Amino acid sequence: MSITTVYSAFLELEKRDIVLAREKSGYYVKPLLEDLLPFPQIPTKPIGPGKVTVNNLSFALCEAMTDPDVLQLGGALIHPDLLPAKSLYSSLRAISSENRNVALSTYEHFMGYLELRRQIAKRADPIWGPTSANQIVVTNGCMEAVSLCLQSVAQAGDTILVSSPTFPWFLQLIEDFGMYALEIPAITPEGIDISLVLEAINRYTIQACILMANFSNPLGYLMPDEKKKELVDLLSSHRIPLIEDDIYGELYFDSKRPIPFKAFDRTGNVLYCASFSKTLSPGLRVGWTAPGIYLDTVRRRKLNQNIANPGITQIAAANFLQAGNFDRHLRRLRTNLKHQVSNMALAIARFFPAGTKISSPRGGFTLWVQCPDGLDSLNVFRRALKNQIAILPGIICATTGIYGNCIRISCGMPYDDHIEAGIKVLADIVNDQLSESNGNEH
Amino acid sequence: MSITTVYSAFLELEKRDIVLAREKSGYYVKPLLEDLLPFPQIPTKPIGPGKVTVNNLSFALCEAMTDPDVLQLGGALIHPDLLPAKSLYSSLRAISSENRNVALSTYEHFMGYLELRRQIAKRADPIWGPTSANQIVVTNGCMEAVSLCLQSVAQAGDTILVSSPTFPWFLQLIEDFGMYALEIPAITPEGIDISLVLEAINRYTIQACILMANFSNPLGYLMPDEKKKELVDLLSSHRIPLIEDDIYGELYFDSKRPIPFKAFDRTGNVLYCASFSKTLSPGLRVGWTAPGIYLDTVRRRKLNQNIANPGITQIAAANFLQAGNFDRHLRRLRTNLKHQVSNMALAIARFFPAGTKISSPRGGFTLWVQCPDGLDSLNVFRRALKNQIAILPGIICATTGIYGNCIRISCGMPYDDHIEAGIKVLADIVNDQLSESNGNEH
Repeated sequence: MSITTVYSAFLELEKRDIVLAREKSGYYVKPLLEDLLPFPQIPTKPIGPGKVTVNNLSFALCEAMTDPDVLQLGGALIHPDLLPAKSLYSSLRAISSENRNVALSTYEHFMGYLELRRQIAKRADPIWGPTSANQIVVTNGCMEAVSLCLQSVAQAGDTILVSSPTFPWFLQLIEDFGMYALEIPAITPEGIDISLVLEAINRYTIQACILMANFSNPLGYLMPDEKKKELVDLLSSHRIPLIEDDIYGELYFDSKRPIPFKAFDRTGNVLYCASFSKTLSPGLRVGWTAPGIYLDTVRRRKLNQNIANPGITQIAAANFLQAGNFDRHLRRLRTNLKHQVSNMALAIARFFPAGTKISSPRGGFTLWVQCPDGLDSLNVFRRALKNQIAILPGIICATTGIYGNCIRISCGMPYDDHIEAGIKVLADIVNDQLSESNGNEH
Repeated sequence: MSITTVYSAFLELEKRDIVLAREKSGYYVKPLLEDLLPFPQIPTKPIGPGKVTVNNLSFALCEAMTDPDVLQLGGALIHPDLLPAKSLYSSLRAISSENRNVALSTYEHFMGYLELRRQIAKRADPIWGPTSANQIVVTNGCMEAVSLCLQSVAQAGDTILVSSPTFPWFLQLIEDFGMYALEIPAITPEGIDISLVLEAINRYTIQACILMANFSNPLGYLMPDEKKKELVDLLSSHRIPLIEDDIYGELYFDSKRPIPFKAFDRTGNVLYCASFSKTLSPGLRVGWTAPGIYLDTVRRRKLNQNIANPGITQIAAANFLQAGNFDRHLRRLRTNLKHQVSNMALAIARFFPAGTKISSPRGGFTLWVQCPDGLDSLNVFRRALKNQIAILPGIICATTGIYGNCIRISCGMPYDDHIEAGIKVLADIVNDQLSESNGNEH
């Protein structure tokens, strides 16, 4: 880019109060992400149990996810270059011919390959205390973990507490199982308000919760530890199982891995779920759950519904972990994601219409973007897809259509001119759509 | 074995009417399996919808399945030497580094790897007519296919028709989903009596059926084609979805692959399920379903519950099929299984107590053995396991305990002295248990 372009961009950013100009020193980005743009607004009251009908969009979304010509700002995908596929394949190739024959010619243990469970337990140890391989069930990704846990603690007709906005897949599961979603607003960057949870418990019969403590999808909030503890204790005292999705827990931008709800679980009431899909390989489909006192029910469902995970992929994952390069890879990945998220946030701040609000995640790699009122995110989704750009329309992150003016932007791809061009096109679509819906064609 | 041993064995078999002695010619086994021993008795009336509670045994059974020191006559496992693990691994290694990186670094399409679905469709073509890759959803084994199909057509409280005896996993799924099982006796080697199905339809509200037309597990029956057609038409006219498990369809002992229910399906009412677990690799976890008119619901559930199968295992399977060695492998496998099943049947006929009845499957590799009244198959199961022998107690093949004197013997292992010794030990346990339960300690 020419100096003039850069300079005019900085002037624009200064005008929008995004960068600070310090005399004789240069431009500084304001404290990273925090306060870049205002934090998105979320309703302040719980939304009563509602029937879920968000399912139909996900097909279109998933088709787009596997299309290499589409700019992937939709699905929470990490660019292949940032994942250690080569090293993982080496771990697969390193499996002895004997073990390989066993893995291909027999069923793996229904709870998962023992050495993998040991490795997972070893990693869990410093995060949430002594853990044994026998408390862990390996699943076909994190979603299978959540699905098995949800089926194990609730049934059709039950009400499930989630945050608002929430990960659409939770709503889709709740819909498929004939359950109801109760949405508790995540009113601050710190996640849901616990007094609202208590209010909801007193008013409705809540059978289970599905929540993320660390870098929630899509809002990216990080609950403070005391709040995690308070919530775990509250739910435990009401015997409401807490299904925790900690898939982004390893992708922190600060210096320390945040601890999950599970760390505060003294009664076995937390069903912890995670996977390697956002850190190592989505295509390997290796997730796991430590479902506490619900272990027997959960592992029975795993056994009954699909016998076991493939053996060979589990051994590859175990070998990769054992080789000891995972943490080094994670450090690199975190640095990359942190930069990608802030670059993307800056680009959105630059190109999106005035009045846009944005989340300031301290981990993970999704941004929640609230556009001015009147935006139809579904329409933006469709138009963007025609321009080979995938986004996630905010409307599917709730049962009630309240996030129609929001979109989730995934920052899994290295920031470059191509992405910047895509964000510009997206901003144009947003502007066009806003003008049209406000009746001012331009 | 010495000539005398062999000769005395034949004398014993002749006495028991199992072999024929032809003068100057030698001993002949009577028409293979048919009429070796009487066919097991099955109740003649449908068993009304019942709550299922067979689940607890399966843990012990599955633990035994992964124990290399246990003689595997329990789980339907094929000996690793009979499976082409080496060739399958070559197919996996042959994946180009580019495809491998994509497979490991991204999510596979939620319906499955396209080329694999094409290969599956190509194989289905001559069996049940023109099939497209878009009608097929790849699943984590056949059980996931059955599970997704069952969830897609029925819900808690519904009644599901199965055969009696049935594959215990069907009952376990029905139990987990809070449904009821209606068991229709399979009164002949040809499977369930269709007039009994009609009777059941008239008497109860049946939401769905889970049935096997070809070499049912555990009974091994093969329904004649006209009966398949009649049943498919009957269920279609009553709009009762038919979930077909055809996992043993390729393992026929006669000259021709039997066609499935799906071949007679003109309304899309048959949800066909199968996998490579009994023919290529159980550990690969590659199954599939062609769910007819229920495709949208089934694939949505696959997507929502675990996003997709791993890519790398699917590509390996597709490459293996494409290499064109599958049919040659299957021919060899069929011959082996046929011999193993008849050798095992002969051994059971030799060593088990008089009055024992046995099934005469024309495919698959399980034998259904009905011991004299008074046998407690659960007790036999426990004692056998102490002697490092796994069997499947018949009692878990029904909801009502009616098969307490039956056991299912898997014939997946090459017949040898070790197996023969195991069958002898098992026969001793059966004899002991019978004596005890009849109050005649010996």
